[in-house]
Amino acid sequence: MHCDTVWHNAHLMTLDDATGGLGIVRDGVVAARDGRIVHAGPAATAPAFDTVRRIDCDGRWISPGLVDCHTHLVYAGNRANEFEQRLQGVSYADIARAGGGIVASVRATRDADDAALLAATLPRLDAMLAEGVTTLEIKSGYGLTLDDERKQLRVARQLQRLRRVEVVPTFLGAHAVPPGRQAQEYIDEVCDVMIPAIAGEGLAEAVDVFCENIAFSREQAAQVFEAAHRHGLAVKIHAEQLSNQHGAELAARHGALSADHIEHLDEAGIAAMRAAGTVAVLLPAAFYFTRDTTVPPIHNLRAAGVPLALATDSNPGTSPLTSPLLAMNMGATLFRMTVAECIAGFTREAARALGRFDRVGRIAAGMDCDLALWDIDAPADLVYRMGFNPLHARVFRGEPTT
Amino acid sequence: MHCDTVWHNAHLMTLDDATGGLGIVRDGVVAARDGRIVHAGPAATAPAFDTVRRIDCDGRWISPGLVDCHTHLVYAGNRANEFEQRLQGVSYADIARAGGGIVASVRATRDADDAALLAATLPRLDAMLAEGVTTLEIKSGYGLTLDDERKQLRVARQLQRLRRVEVVPTFLGAHAVPPGRQAQEYIDEVCDVMIPAIAGEGLAEAVDVFCENIAFSREQAAQVFEAAHRHGLAVKIHAEQLSNQHGAELAARHGALSADHIEHLDEAGIAAMRAAGTVAVLLPAAFYFTRDTTVPPIHNLRAAGVPLALATDSNPGTSPLTSPLLAMNMGATLFRMTVAECIAGFTREAARALGRFDRVGRIAAGMDCDLALWDIDAPADLVYRMGFNPLHARVFRGEPTT
Ligand SMILES: [Zn+2]
Ligand SMILES: [Zn+2]
Repeated sequence: MHCDTVWHNAHLMTLDDATGGLGIVRDGVVAARDGRIVHAGPAATAPAFDTVRRIDCDGRWISPGLVDCHTHLVYAGNRANEFEQRLQGVSYADIARAGGGIVASVRATRDADDAALLAATLPRLDAMLAEGVTTLEIKSGYGLTLDDERKQLRVARQLQRLRRVEVVPTFLGAHAVPPGRQAQEYIDEVCDVMIPAIAGEGLAEAVDVFCENIAFSREQAAQVFEAAHRHGLAVKIHAEQLSNQHGAELAARHGALSADHIEHLDEAGIAAMRAAGTVAVLLPAAFYFTRDTTVPPIHNLRAAGVPLALATDSNPGTSPLTSPLLAMNMGATLFRMTVAECIAGFTREAARALGRFDRVGRIAAGMDCDLALWDIDAPADLVYRMGFNPLHARVFRGEPTT
Repeated sequence: MHCDTVWHNAHLMTLDDATGGLGIVRDGVVAARDGRIVHAGPAATAPAFDTVRRIDCDGRWISPGLVDCHTHLVYAGNRANEFEQRLQGVSYADIARAGGGIVASVRATRDADDAALLAATLPRLDAMLAEGVTTLEIKSGYGLTLDDERKQLRVARQLQRLRRVEVVPTFLGAHAVPPGRQAQEYIDEVCDVMIPAIAGEGLAEAVDVFCENIAFSREQAAQVFEAAHRHGLAVKIHAEQLSNQHGAELAARHGALSADHIEHLDEAGIAAMRAAGTVAVLLPAAFYFTRDTTVPPIHNLRAAGVPLALATDSNPGTSPLTSPLLAMNMGATLFRMTVAECIAGFTREAARALGRFDRVGRIAAGMDCDLALWDIDAPADLVYRMGFNPLHARVFRGEPTT
């Protein structure tokens, strides 16, 4: 078999397992040509390879490159000061009155030009890449004007010209009611002006909405979904984080890729997600950081067969996290997800949540050759340890990279 | 003023503040000669320096090098498998019956020779150093025979010959009752054979004991403390983690450097610690990892003026953590410690817990020149972020190092 590169002397977590497992292959090989996997499986039964390069992995483990399917990575400003104030006993309400909270990120992001926004974001992206991320979703939502949302999405796209990574842009104009605006007239602008423009310019491939009593109603979410569909964009939702608004159910009925957070999801929501194939995106670091106590209904989601993805939710207000591995540990420790669920949640299931199930998140012939090589004894090490990065190398589209 | 190195164009967290604060100096300078700080303070009032080297910090922040005052870093084996099993519903009791738990670490550590133990430990140490640690305590306690405890302490000492770091060795023979032994006859051996040998060989400077219903009694702890004092060693205790054994109070009455964990500490314990100057060492990552729900009495400790240190408790069973910064975030998020308390807990107060208050943990003339230079906007960034390492450079005894 003709190929560019063969990785051998490795154990594989292929994630190519319909039963939800890790698809482990001990003593396996992966072969790539033109950036795609052409063969993956046990060394013992591999074909003969005619290859340019042969990489000895010294018995390391290879997983698919990690996929972070929910981030708000592009923003300006720093909200560590609010964190500090809250520890000193200042209330959320007082911080908001002083111009803090999401409004602070919106102000800083509006004030930043493309270059400043890019410079603020790159160290966060580099931290993700250092832990093996090869695909990540980035939402807008700190601009809240067409021009400022465009700017965030432009910067998101620019990141993948500066680093070897695939960025999946999502338009989250419906993140918060902008200061000085009224919710319904702003949603009308999102639907009638912003979504057509963003779609026309190819700046996003999906539209997200924050459905919550402090943000937008179920009816407004439905309006956003309809506008998105009219313009050929996929939809997803921030739902049931603080209360049950039945947003996940609504989103599933609109064919949503994913419903995210879902701490307060009920059985009707689970059934709707299951029927639609909507992925549950679990965000344990936001749960941890906000000291939430309502755990998402993992057991019932699992029992219903709803796909479970995990993500960092990297954002300045509720999850200043840039470590997928720590999100995995939190998924296990706080949500009692299994090791296989945590790893699948950052590979196969995250790819599913981004509409890329057939392209990334598994090690199988035909998939993009995005890999992470790990200095670990067993897959569980990725989830068990805290604050330790065992990445040996990252491979993007067939090329070892950093 | 004659010196070797001057760091300028920096903001300082000197921690040199008797009121418990960060001792912030904006636009400060630090000067070192022969590995020690000879001057630290505002640039505006600094003397003229006659220096070999002048390092422009580009406006970065400098803190004391971090001090981790409670770790079990030296061990062999991997217990990720137990973590995985517990997530699949296997009970602690079944894991213990199958030879898991601390016994698994003891077996693996006994089976490892010095070189294997060193090789297993170095990546963990390197992760600590990468986050700015310049001093760390390492306990024995996975050998539980004189020879195997010696081996752990030898390896702990060897680490500081291989890396630029100061290791503070603690003898924790009284960590668990060894398999096949009886608690009292083992404690007699710890006191009558092991402590004299370890002290005589200079392998440890303090003795620790795990006082708990699953480990050793208060009376046995007292016996250990008396033996330690007879042989000139300081004492400390693992106390009140799972239940109130009044161990911290006992330790304080024996002049303990620190009482560690102390989730179940009562007012009598707090009063005794206060009277003795015993440091409270808080270990939020073990609290997190074991899903503990009893928060240590931070408010009452603070009100009583007991010094608060923070540490990783890095160990394979209850805190597989190698990130001081994440321990700070957990101290804030889970224990509601302030930003200043978290940073002081890994510098000034940790130094106090190791009997090194006059030598490390602060930036002041006369102290060892151990520094950490950070790419941050403000001190709160060190505590607020999760899974991100903003270390720019580490300085050990006046020398920039890695
Ligand atoms: Zn989000
Ligand atoms: Zn400990």
